[in-house]
Amino acid sequence: MKAITSPQNNYIKQLVQLKDKSRERKKTGTFLIEGIREVSLAIKGGYKLKTVLFYPELYSEVQLNELTNQQTDCIEISKEVYQKLAYRDTTEGVLAVAKSKTNSLGDLVFKNENPLILVAEAPEKPGNIGAILRTADAANVDAVIIANPKTDLYNPNIIRSSVGCLFTNQIATGTTSEIIEFLKEKNINIYSAILQESVDYHTQDFTKSTAIIVGTEAVGLSNEWRKNTTKNIIIPMQGEIDSLNVSVAAGILIFEAKRQRNFK
Amino acid sequence: MKAITSPQNNYIKQLVQLKDKSRERKKTGTFLIEGIREVSLAIKGGYKLKTVLFYPELYSEVQLNELTNQQTDCIEISKEVYQKLAYRDTTEGVLAVAKSKTNSLGDLVFKNENPLILVAEAPEKPGNIGAILRTADAANVDAVIIANPKTDLYNPNIIRSSVGCLFTNQIATGTTSEIIEFLKEKNINIYSAILQESVDYHTQDFTKSTAIIVGTEAVGLSNEWRKNTTKNIIIPMQGEIDSLNVSVAAGILIFEAKRQRNFK
Repeated sequence: MKAITSPQNNYIKQLVQLKDKSRERKKTGTFLIEGIREVSLAIKGGYKLKTVLFYPELYSEVQLNELTNQQTDCIEISKEVYQKLAYRDTTEGVLAVAKSKTNSLGDLVFKNENPLILVAEAPEKPGNIGAILRTADAANVDAVIIANPKTDLYNPNIIRSSVGCLFTNQIATGTTSEIIEFLKEKNINIYSAILQESVDYHTQDFTKSTAIIVGTEAVGLSNEWRKNTTKNIIIPMQGEIDSLNVSVAAGILIFEAKRQRNFK
Repeated sequence: MKAITSPQNNYIKQLVQLKDKSRERKKTGTFLIEGIREVSLAIKGGYKLKTVLFYPELYSEVQLNELTNQQTDCIEISKEVYQKLAYRDTTEGVLAVAKSKTNSLGDLVFKNENPLILVAEAPEKPGNIGAILRTADAANVDAVIIANPKTDLYNPNIIRSSVGCLFTNQIATGTTSEIIEFLKEKNINIYSAILQESVDYHTQDFTKSTAIIVGTEAVGLSNEWRKNTTKNIIIPMQGEIDSLNVSVAAGILIFEAKRQRNFK
Protein backbone atom coordinates (compact mmCIF):
# COMPACT_ATOMS: atom_id res chain seq x y z
CA MET A 1 0.00 0.00 0.00
CA LYS A 2 1.30 3.40 -1.00
CA ALA A 3 1.57 5.99 1.79
CA ILE A 4 1.94 9.77 1.76
CA THR A 5 2.92 11.57 4.93
CA SER A 6 3.97 15.02 3.77
CA PRO A 7 1.43 17.75 2.98
CA GLN A 8 4.12 19.15 0.69
CA ASN A 9 3.92 16.11 -1.58
CA ASN A 10 3.24 17.17 -5.16
CA TYR A 11 0.28 14.87 -5.67
CA ILE A 12 -1.34 16.19 -2.48
CA LYS A 13 -0.80 19.74 -3.71
CA GLN A 14 -2.61 18.79 -6.91
CA LEU A 15 -5.52 17.43 -4.89
CA VAL A 16 -5.77 20.68 -2.94
CA GLN A 17 -6.10 22.44 -6.30
CA LEU A 18 -8.78 19.94 -7.26
CA LYS A 19 -10.71 20.80 -4.13
CA ASP A 20 -10.34 24.56 -4.49
CA LYS A 21 -10.32 25.26 -8.22
CA SER A 22 -13.07 24.60 -10.70
CA ARG A 23 -10.51 25.10 -13.49
CA GLU A 24 -8.41 22.25 -12.16
CA ARG A 25 -11.45 19.98 -11.98
CA LYS A 26 -12.36 20.79 -15.57
CA LYS A 27 -8.79 20.37 -16.81
CA THR A 28 -8.37 16.94 -15.26
CA GLY A 29 -11.97 15.73 -15.55
CA THR A 30 -11.81 14.65 -11.92
CA PHE A 31 -13.04 15.92 -8.56
CA LEU A 32 -12.62 15.24 -4.87
CA ILE A 33 -15.24 13.54 -2.70
CA GLU A 34 -15.13 13.58 1.09
CA GLY A 35 -16.92 11.29 3.51
CA ILE A 36 -17.95 7.65 3.69
CA ARG A 37 -21.56 8.17 2.73
CA GLU A 38 -20.67 10.44 -0.17
CA VAL A 39 -18.04 8.05 -1.57
CA SER A 40 -20.45 5.16 -1.21
CA LEU A 41 -23.25 7.05 -3.00
CA ALA A 42 -20.90 8.07 -5.80
CA ILE A 43 -19.94 4.43 -6.38
CA LYS A 44 -23.63 3.46 -6.35
CA GLY A 45 -24.33 6.30 -8.77
CA GLY A 46 -21.88 4.90 -11.29
CA TYR A 47 -18.97 7.26 -10.68
CA LYS A 48 -15.52 5.77 -11.30
CA LEU A 49 -13.06 6.33 -8.47
CA LYS A 50 -9.46 6.82 -9.50
CA THR A 51 -7.92 6.87 -6.06
CA VAL A 52 -9.12 6.55 -2.48
CA LEU A 53 -7.17 8.21 0.31
CA PHE A 54 -7.66 7.24 3.92
CA TYR A 55 -6.30 8.16 7.30
CA PRO A 56 -6.01 4.78 9.08
CA GLU A 57 -6.62 6.06 12.60
CA LEU A 58 -10.11 7.14 11.57
CA TYR A 59 -10.92 4.57 8.92
CA SER A 60 -9.37 1.12 8.63
CA GLU A 61 -8.15 -0.70 5.54
CA VAL A 62 -10.77 -3.38 6.15
CA GLN A 63 -13.58 -0.80 6.13
CA LEU A 64 -12.07 0.75 3.05
CA ASN A 65 -12.05 -2.52 1.15
CA GLU A 66 -15.71 -3.03 1.98
CA LEU A 67 -16.50 0.48 0.78
CA THR A 68 -14.65 0.35 -2.52
CA ASN A 69 -14.88 -3.36 -3.20
CA GLN A 70 -11.07 -3.45 -3.55
CA GLN A 71 -11.08 -2.23 -7.11
CA THR A 72 -9.52 1.14 -6.50
CA ASP A 73 -6.03 2.41 -6.02
CA CYS A 74 -5.66 3.22 -2.30
CA ILE A 75 -3.28 5.56 -0.55
CA GLU A 76 -2.71 5.73 3.18
CA ILE A 77 -2.28 9.33 4.33
CA SER A 78 -1.04 11.00 7.50
CA LYS A 79 -3.11 13.20 9.77
CA GLU A 80 -1.44 16.32 8.36
CA VAL A 81 -2.24 15.33 4.78
CA TYR A 82 -5.81 14.44 5.71
CA GLN A 83 -6.36 17.78 7.43
CA LYS A 84 -5.00 19.58 4.40
CA LEU A 85 -7.51 17.88 2.09
CA ALA A 86 -10.57 17.55 4.31
CA TYR A 87 -13.24 20.22 4.26
CA ARG A 88 -15.44 19.33 7.17
CA ASP A 89 -15.19 19.63 10.90
CA THR A 90 -16.49 16.17 11.51
CA THR A 91 -13.85 13.92 10.11
CA GLU A 92 -14.44 10.48 8.69
CA GLY A 93 -10.99 9.75 7.34
CA VAL A 94 -11.91 9.02 3.71
CA LEU A 95 -11.49 10.99 0.51
CA ALA A 96 -11.71 9.87 -3.10
CA VAL A 97 -10.68 11.25 -6.47
CA ALA A 98 -13.49 10.47 -8.92
CA LYS A 99 -13.95 10.90 -12.64
CA SER A 100 -16.50 13.61 -13.51
CA LYS A 101 -19.47 12.60 -15.64
CA THR A 102 -20.10 14.41 -18.89
CA ASN A 103 -23.71 15.14 -17.87
CA SER A 104 -24.86 15.38 -21.50
CA LEU A 105 -28.50 15.73 -22.41
CA GLY A 106 -28.07 12.85 -24.86
CA ASP A 107 -27.24 10.45 -22.05
CA LEU A 108 -30.49 11.00 -20.15
CA VAL A 109 -32.70 7.92 -19.91
CA PHE A 110 -36.24 8.35 -18.61
CA LYS A 111 -37.78 5.62 -16.52
CA ASN A 112 -41.28 7.07 -16.84
CA GLU A 113 -43.39 7.31 -19.93
CA ASN A 114 -44.41 10.78 -18.77
CA PRO A 115 -41.24 12.07 -17.20
CA LEU A 116 -41.06 14.81 -14.60
CA ILE A 117 -37.99 17.00 -15.04
CA LEU A 118 -36.67 19.92 -13.03
CA VAL A 119 -34.69 22.54 -14.93
CA ALA A 120 -32.83 25.29 -13.07
CA GLU A 121 -31.32 28.09 -15.10
CA ALA A 122 -28.00 29.55 -13.97
CA PRO A 123 -28.35 28.78 -10.25
CA GLU A 124 -25.38 30.17 -8.34
CA LYS A 125 -25.44 29.50 -4.63
CA PRO A 126 -24.15 26.03 -3.76
CA GLY A 127 -26.62 25.89 -0.84
CA ASN A 128 -29.59 26.41 -3.17
CA ILE A 129 -28.29 23.92 -5.72
CA GLY A 130 -27.81 21.39 -2.94
CA ALA A 131 -31.35 21.94 -1.63
CA ILE A 132 -32.74 21.56 -5.19
CA LEU A 133 -30.88 18.27 -5.65
CA ARG A 134 -32.28 17.01 -2.32
CA THR A 135 -35.80 17.89 -3.47
CA ALA A 136 -35.20 16.18 -6.82
CA ASP A 137 -34.01 13.02 -5.06
CA ALA A 138 -36.94 12.96 -2.64
CA ALA A 139 -39.41 13.48 -5.51
CA ASN A 140 -37.56 10.87 -7.60
CA VAL A 141 -37.75 13.13 -10.65
CA ASP A 142 -36.52 11.68 -13.92
CA ALA A 143 -33.78 14.24 -14.37
CA VAL A 144 -32.37 17.51 -13.11
CA ILE A 145 -31.10 19.76 -15.89
CA ILE A 146 -28.94 22.81 -15.20
CA ALA A 147 -29.17 25.43 -17.95
CA ASN A 148 -26.24 27.79 -18.52
CA PRO A 149 -24.46 26.58 -15.39
CA LYS A 150 -22.62 29.25 -13.41
CA THR A 151 -21.21 26.98 -10.76
CA ASP A 152 -19.26 23.79 -11.31
CA LEU A 153 -21.44 20.89 -10.14
CA TYR A 154 -18.44 19.20 -8.55
CA ASN A 155 -17.82 22.15 -6.24
CA PRO A 156 -17.28 20.60 -2.76
CA ASN A 157 -19.94 22.92 -1.29
CA ILE A 158 -22.55 21.51 -3.68
CA ILE A 159 -21.59 17.93 -2.86
CA ARG A 160 -21.84 18.75 0.82
CA SER A 161 -25.07 20.75 0.76
CA SER A 162 -26.73 18.13 -1.45
CA VAL A 163 -25.93 15.53 1.27
CA GLY A 164 -24.83 13.27 -1.59
CA CYS A 165 -27.91 13.84 -3.80
CA LEU A 166 -25.54 15.04 -6.50
CA PHE A 167 -24.83 11.33 -6.99
CA THR A 168 -28.36 9.95 -6.77
CA ASN A 169 -29.95 12.15 -9.43
CA GLN A 170 -29.66 11.87 -13.17
CA ILE A 171 -28.18 15.26 -14.05
CA ALA A 172 -27.50 17.00 -17.34
CA THR A 173 -26.19 20.43 -18.20
CA GLY A 174 -26.47 22.45 -21.39
CA THR A 175 -27.22 25.84 -22.83
CA THR A 176 -30.80 27.04 -22.58
CA SER A 177 -31.18 26.64 -26.36
CA GLU A 178 -29.95 23.04 -26.29
CA ILE A 179 -32.30 22.19 -23.46
CA ILE A 180 -35.33 23.76 -25.13
CA GLU A 181 -34.55 21.84 -28.31
CA PHE A 182 -34.13 18.64 -26.30
CA LEU A 183 -37.45 19.08 -24.46
CA LYS A 184 -39.35 19.90 -27.66
CA GLU A 185 -37.90 16.90 -29.46
CA LYS A 186 -39.13 14.67 -26.65
CA ASN A 187 -42.55 16.37 -26.56
CA ILE A 188 -42.13 17.42 -22.97
CA ASN A 189 -44.32 20.31 -21.82
CA ILE A 190 -42.39 23.34 -20.66
CA TYR A 191 -43.75 25.12 -17.57
CA SER A 192 -41.65 28.20 -16.96
CA ALA A 193 -41.85 29.99 -13.64
CA ILE A 194 -42.26 33.48 -15.08
CA LEU A 195 -44.45 36.26 -13.66
CA GLN A 196 -45.68 37.69 -16.96
CA GLU A 197 -48.63 36.19 -18.82
CA SER A 198 -48.76 33.37 -16.35
CA VAL A 199 -51.37 31.06 -14.86
CA ASP A 200 -51.50 29.77 -11.29
CA TYR A 201 -49.28 26.68 -11.05
CA HIS A 202 -51.90 24.47 -9.40
CA THR A 203 -54.38 24.93 -12.28
CA GLN A 204 -52.10 23.09 -14.71
CA ASP A 205 -51.97 19.37 -15.47
CA PHE A 206 -48.52 18.10 -14.57
CA THR A 207 -49.38 14.42 -15.08
CA LYS A 208 -48.25 14.54 -18.70
CA SER A 209 -44.58 14.82 -19.65
CA THR A 210 -43.52 17.87 -17.69
CA ALA A 211 -40.46 20.03 -17.29
CA ILE A 212 -40.64 22.69 -14.57
CA ILE A 213 -38.22 25.53 -15.18
CA VAL A 214 -37.00 27.87 -12.44
CA GLY A 215 -34.65 30.83 -12.83
CA THR A 216 -32.52 32.84 -10.48
CA GLU A 217 -33.97 35.00 -7.73
CA ALA A 218 -32.20 38.05 -9.12
CA VAL A 219 -33.07 37.96 -12.81
CA GLY A 220 -35.62 35.16 -13.26
CA LEU A 221 -35.63 33.17 -16.49
CA SER A 222 -34.09 34.28 -19.76
CA ASN A 223 -36.30 35.38 -22.66
CA GLU A 224 -35.79 32.15 -24.59
CA TRP A 225 -37.94 30.30 -22.09
CA ARG A 226 -40.74 32.82 -22.51
CA LYS A 227 -40.73 32.29 -26.27
CA ASN A 228 -40.74 28.51 -26.01
CA THR A 229 -42.94 27.93 -22.99
CA THR A 230 -46.02 25.69 -22.98
CA LYS A 231 -47.39 27.85 -20.15
CA ASN A 232 -45.83 30.32 -17.79
CA ILE A 233 -46.70 29.41 -14.23
CA ILE A 234 -46.73 31.46 -11.07
CA ILE A 235 -47.06 30.65 -7.39
CA PRO A 236 -49.73 33.05 -6.10
CA MET A 237 -48.28 35.17 -3.33
CA GLN A 238 -50.05 37.51 -0.98
CA GLY A 239 -47.37 38.92 1.26
CA GLU A 240 -45.66 42.25 1.39
CA ILE A 241 -42.42 41.10 -0.15
CA ASP A 242 -43.37 38.01 -2.14
CA SER A 243 -39.93 36.62 -2.59
CA LEU A 244 -39.56 32.86 -2.29
CA ASN A 245 -36.17 31.24 -2.05
CA VAL A 246 -35.53 29.49 -5.40
CA SER A 247 -35.15 26.05 -3.84
CA VAL A 248 -38.40 26.52 -1.89
CA ALA A 249 -40.23 27.59 -5.08
CA ALA A 250 -38.85 24.54 -6.94
CA GLY A 251 -40.00 22.32 -4.06
CA ILE A 252 -43.55 23.71 -4.11
CA LEU A 253 -43.85 23.23 -7.89
CA ILE A 254 -42.30 19.75 -8.05
CA PHE A 255 -44.39 18.44 -5.15
CA GLU A 256 -47.60 19.81 -6.68
CA ALA A 257 -46.71 17.70 -9.73
CA LYS A 258 -46.07 14.72 -7.45
CA ARG A 259 -49.41 15.26 -5.71
CA GLN A 260 -51.20 15.31 -9.04
CA ARG A 261 -49.40 12.10 -9.97
CA ASN A 262 -50.47 10.50 -6.67
CA PHE A 263 -46.83 10.20 -5.72
CA LYS A 264 -46.29 7.45 -8.28
CA MET B 1 -26.98 67.09 13.76
CA LYS B 2 -24.69 64.89 15.79
CA ALA B 3 -21.71 63.44 13.94
CA ILE B 4 -19.30 60.61 14.76
CA THR B 5 -16.11 60.25 12.79
CA SER B 6 -13.98 57.88 14.86
CA PRO B 7 -14.49 54.11 14.76
CA GLN B 8 -13.00 54.15 18.27
CA ASN B 9 -15.95 56.11 19.63
CA ASN B 10 -17.51 54.27 22.56
CA TYR B 11 -21.04 54.34 21.22
CA ILE B 12 -19.83 52.87 17.91
CA LYS B 13 -18.02 50.14 19.81
CA GLN B 14 -21.31 49.34 21.55
CA LEU B 15 -23.04 49.09 18.18
CA VAL B 16 -20.42 46.64 16.91
CA GLN B 17 -21.24 44.51 19.96
CA LEU B 18 -24.91 44.82 19.10
CA LYS B 19 -24.22 43.52 15.61
CA ASP B 20 -22.00 40.66 16.71
CA LYS B 21 -23.36 39.50 20.07
CA SER B 22 -26.74 38.05 20.80
CA ARG B 23 -26.09 38.66 24.51
CA GLU B 24 -25.68 42.37 23.89
CA ARG B 25 -28.94 42.47 21.90
CA LYS B 26 -30.78 40.73 24.71
CA LYS B 27 -29.25 42.90 27.41
CA THR B 28 -30.19 46.14 25.69
CA GLY B 29 -33.41 45.01 24.04
CA THR B 30 -32.18 46.55 20.80
CA PHE B 31 -30.66 45.38 17.53
CA LEU B 32 -29.01 46.78 14.43
CA ILE B 33 -30.70 46.99 11.02
CA GLU B 34 -28.79 47.64 7.81
CA GLY B 35 -30.13 48.83 4.49
CA ILE B 36 -32.80 51.22 3.23
CA ARG B 37 -35.38 48.56 2.43
CA GLU B 38 -34.88 46.78 5.74
CA VAL B 39 -35.16 49.97 7.80
CA SER B 40 -38.25 50.96 5.86
CA LEU B 41 -39.89 47.55 6.37
CA ALA B 42 -39.07 47.63 10.08
CA ILE B 43 -40.79 51.00 10.44
CA LYS B 44 -43.80 49.67 8.51
CA GLY B 45 -43.79 46.57 10.71
CA GLY B 46 -44.16 48.69 13.83
CA TYR B 47 -40.60 48.57 15.08
CA LYS B 48 -39.44 51.64 17.01
CA LEU B 49 -36.15 53.08 15.85
CA LYS B 50 -33.95 54.59 18.55
CA THR B 51 -31.26 55.98 16.30
CA VAL B 52 -30.53 56.14 12.60
CA LEU B 53 -26.95 56.38 11.39
CA PHE B 54 -26.11 57.50 7.89
CA TYR B 55 -23.05 58.09 5.77
CA PRO B 56 -23.95 61.25 3.83
CA GLU B 57 -21.94 60.44 0.71
CA LEU B 58 -24.13 57.39 0.12
CA TYR B 59 -27.41 58.58 1.60
CA SER B 60 -28.48 62.18 2.01
CA GLU B 61 -30.20 63.84 4.96
CA VAL B 62 -33.20 64.58 2.74
CA GLN B 63 -33.60 60.90 1.83
CA LEU B 64 -33.16 60.03 5.48
CA ASN B 65 -35.93 62.35 6.58
CA GLU B 66 -38.26 60.79 4.03
CA LEU B 67 -37.34 57.32 5.26
CA THR B 68 -37.77 57.94 8.96
CA ASN B 69 -40.38 60.67 8.83
CA GLN B 70 -38.07 62.87 10.91
CA GLN B 71 -39.08 61.32 14.20
CA THR B 72 -35.83 59.60 14.99
CA ASP B 73 -32.53 60.67 16.46
CA CYS B 74 -30.05 60.85 13.55
CA ILE B 75 -26.28 60.60 13.56
CA GLU B 76 -24.01 61.41 10.65
CA ILE B 77 -21.12 58.96 10.45
CA SER B 78 -17.82 58.85 8.58
CA LYS B 79 -16.87 56.26 5.99
CA GLU B 80 -14.65 54.47 8.53
CA VAL B 81 -17.45 54.22 11.07
CA TYR B 82 -19.90 53.05 8.42
CA GLN B 83 -17.54 50.33 7.22
CA LYS B 84 -17.03 49.16 10.78
CA LEU B 85 -20.78 48.73 11.30
CA ALA B 86 -21.95 47.59 7.86
CA TYR B 87 -22.21 43.91 7.07
CA ARG B 88 -22.80 43.86 3.36
CA ASP B 89 -20.66 44.39 0.32
CA THR B 90 -23.23 46.51 -1.41
CA THR B 91 -23.44 49.57 0.70
CA GLU B 92 -26.47 51.76 1.07
CA GLY B 93 -25.23 54.12 3.75
CA VAL B 94 -28.00 53.57 6.33
CA LEU B 95 -28.13 51.72 9.62
CA ALA B 96 -30.64 51.88 12.45
CA VAL B 97 -30.79 50.83 16.06
CA ALA B 98 -34.26 49.43 16.72
CA LYS B 99 -36.11 48.20 19.77
CA SER B 100 -36.66 44.43 19.74
CA LYS B 101 -40.23 43.21 20.01
CA THR B 102 -41.16 40.85 22.80
CA ASN B 103 -42.67 38.36 20.34
CA SER B 104 -45.02 36.92 22.95
CA LEU B 105 -47.70 34.41 22.07
CA GLY B 106 -50.21 36.55 23.92
CA ASP B 107 -49.70 39.43 21.50
CA LEU B 108 -50.65 37.44 18.38
CA VAL B 109 -53.76 38.68 16.62
CA PHE B 110 -55.27 36.52 13.89
CA LYS B 111 -56.85 38.18 10.89
CA ASN B 112 -58.50 34.94 9.74
CA GLU B 113 -61.25 33.04 11.44
CA ASN B 114 -59.37 29.85 10.51
CA PRO B 115 -55.78 30.90 10.87
CA LEU B 116 -52.84 29.22 9.18
CA ILE B 117 -49.76 29.15 11.37
CA LEU B 118 -46.25 27.89 10.75
CA VAL B 119 -44.34 26.61 13.76
CA ALA B 120 -40.63 25.79 13.51
CA GLU B 121 -39.00 24.06 16.44
CA ALA B 122 -35.40 24.98 17.28
CA PRO B 123 -34.31 26.01 13.80
CA GLU B 124 -30.62 26.91 13.80
CA LYS B 125 -29.26 28.02 10.45
CA PRO B 126 -29.98 31.70 9.74
CA GLY B 127 -30.31 30.86 6.02
CA ASN B 128 -33.10 28.37 6.70
CA ILE B 129 -34.88 30.69 9.12
CA GLY B 130 -34.67 33.46 6.52
CA ALA B 131 -36.10 31.20 3.80
CA ILE B 132 -38.93 30.13 6.14
CA LEU B 133 -39.80 33.76 6.88
CA ARG B 134 -39.87 34.51 3.14
CA THR B 135 -42.27 31.60 2.58
CA ALA B 136 -44.44 32.77 5.47
CA ASP B 137 -44.62 36.28 4.01
CA ALA B 138 -45.44 35.03 0.51
CA ALA B 139 -48.17 32.75 1.90
CA ASN B 140 -49.42 35.54 4.14
CA VAL B 141 -49.71 33.14 7.07
CA ASP B 142 -51.29 34.45 10.24
CA ALA B 143 -48.21 33.89 12.35
CA VAL B 144 -44.80 32.27 12.48
CA ILE B 145 -44.00 30.74 15.85
CA ILE B 146 -40.49 29.66 16.80
CA ALA B 147 -40.45 26.96 19.49
CA ASN B 148 -37.42 26.64 21.78
CA PRO B 149 -35.44 29.15 19.72
CA LYS B 150 -31.73 28.38 19.34
CA THR B 151 -30.83 31.45 17.35
CA ASP B 152 -31.60 35.04 18.22
CA LEU B 153 -34.17 36.31 15.69
CA TYR B 154 -32.39 39.65 15.48
CA ASN B 155 -29.17 38.04 14.27
CA PRO B 156 -28.04 40.15 11.26
CA ASN B 157 -27.77 37.00 9.12
CA ILE B 158 -31.46 36.26 9.70
CA ILE B 159 -32.49 39.81 8.86
CA ARG B 160 -30.44 39.62 5.70
CA SER B 161 -31.45 36.15 4.52
CA SER B 162 -35.12 36.93 5.22
CA VAL B 163 -34.78 39.92 2.82
CA GLY B 164 -36.71 41.90 5.43
CA CYS B 165 -39.49 39.31 5.97
CA LEU B 166 -38.51 39.27 9.64
CA PHE B 167 -40.39 42.57 9.79
CA THR B 168 -43.43 41.69 7.68
CA ASN B 169 -44.50 38.58 9.58
CA GLN B 170 -46.26 38.33 12.89
CA ILE B 171 -43.74 36.33 14.93
CA ALA B 172 -43.88 34.78 18.38
CA THR B 173 -41.46 32.63 20.32
CA GLY B 174 -42.01 30.34 23.26
CA THR B 175 -41.26 26.94 24.69
CA THR B 176 -42.84 23.98 22.97
CA SER B 177 -45.14 23.46 25.99
CA GLU B 178 -46.32 27.06 25.93
CA ILE B 179 -47.02 26.87 22.20
CA ILE B 180 -48.96 23.61 22.46
CA GLU B 181 -51.06 25.07 25.27
CA PHE B 182 -51.64 28.20 23.20
CA LEU B 183 -52.72 26.25 20.10
CA LYS B 184 -55.03 23.99 22.10
CA GLU B 185 -56.64 26.92 23.84
CA LYS B 186 -57.41 28.47 20.46
CA ASN B 187 -58.67 25.15 19.02
CA ILE B 188 -56.06 25.15 16.30
CA ASN B 189 -55.32 21.76 14.74
CA ILE B 190 -51.74 20.62 15.17
CA TYR B 191 -50.16 18.92 12.14
CA SER B 192 -46.71 17.75 13.12
CA ALA B 193 -44.21 16.74 10.45
CA ILE B 194 -43.21 13.46 12.08
CA LEU B 195 -42.37 10.20 10.26
CA GLN B 196 -43.96 7.82 12.78
CA GLU B 197 -47.68 7.02 12.71
CA SER B 198 -48.19 9.63 10.04
CA VAL B 199 -50.54 10.24 7.13
CA ASP B 200 -49.65 11.80 3.77
CA TYR B 201 -49.83 15.57 4.12
CA HIS B 202 -52.05 16.12 1.09
CA THR B 203 -54.82 13.87 2.45
CA GLN B 204 -55.52 16.24 5.33
CA ASP B 205 -57.93 19.17 5.45
CA PHE B 206 -55.93 22.32 6.11
CA THR B 207 -58.83 24.70 5.53
CA LYS B 208 -59.73 24.64 9.22
CA SER B 209 -57.60 26.36 11.85
CA THR B 210 -54.21 24.85 11.16
CA ALA B 211 -50.75 24.93 12.64
CA ILE B 212 -48.05 23.15 10.64
CA ILE B 213 -45.09 22.15 12.78
CA VAL B 214 -41.64 21.41 11.40
CA GLY B 215 -38.58 20.33 13.35
CA THR B 216 -34.87 20.32 12.66
CA GLU B 217 -33.29 18.20 9.95
CA ALA B 218 -31.04 16.54 12.48
CA VAL B 219 -33.43 15.51 15.25
CA GLY B 220 -36.94 16.22 13.96
CA LEU B 221 -39.63 17.27 16.42
CA SER B 222 -39.55 16.72 20.15
CA ASN B 223 -41.77 14.11 21.76
CA GLU B 224 -44.19 16.68 23.17
CA TRP B 225 -45.50 17.34 19.67
CA ARG B 226 -46.13 13.65 19.11
CA LYS B 227 -48.21 13.47 22.28
CA ASN B 228 -50.25 16.53 21.42
CA THR B 229 -50.61 16.25 17.66
CA THR B 230 -53.91 16.28 15.81
CA LYS B 231 -52.25 14.22 13.08
CA ASN B 232 -48.68 13.52 12.19
CA ILE B 233 -48.08 14.33 8.56
CA ILE B 234 -45.40 13.19 6.14
CA ILE B 235 -44.31 14.25 2.69
CA PRO B 236 -44.12 11.00 0.68
CA MET B 237 -40.60 10.60 -0.66
CA GLN B 238 -39.31 8.07 -3.16
CA GLY B 239 -35.64 8.85 -3.58
CA GLU B 240 -32.53 7.19 -2.30
CA ILE B 241 -31.77 9.72 0.38
CA ASP B 242 -35.12 11.33 1.13
CA SER B 243 -33.86 14.34 2.92
CA LEU B 244 -35.62 17.62 2.23
CA ASN B 245 -34.18 20.90 3.39
CA VAL B 246 -36.36 22.12 6.29
CA SER B 247 -37.34 25.36 4.57
CA VAL B 248 -38.30 23.44 1.41
CA ALA B 249 -40.43 21.01 3.45
CA ALA B 250 -42.14 23.93 5.22
CA GLY B 251 -42.81 25.54 1.82
CA ILE B 252 -44.40 22.40 0.39
CA LEU B 253 -46.69 21.97 3.43
CA ILE B 254 -47.71 25.63 3.74
CA PHE B 255 -48.47 25.97 0.03
CA GLU B 256 -50.55 22.77 0.04
CA ALA B 257 -52.62 24.47 2.75
CA LYS B 258 -52.81 27.61 0.60
CA ARG B 259 -53.89 25.55 -2.43
CA GLN B 260 -56.67 23.94 -0.39
CA ARG B 261 -57.74 27.39 0.75
CA ASN B 262 -57.79 28.60 -2.87
CA PHE B 263 -55.07 31.09 -2.00
CA LYS B 264 -57.52 33.18 -0.01
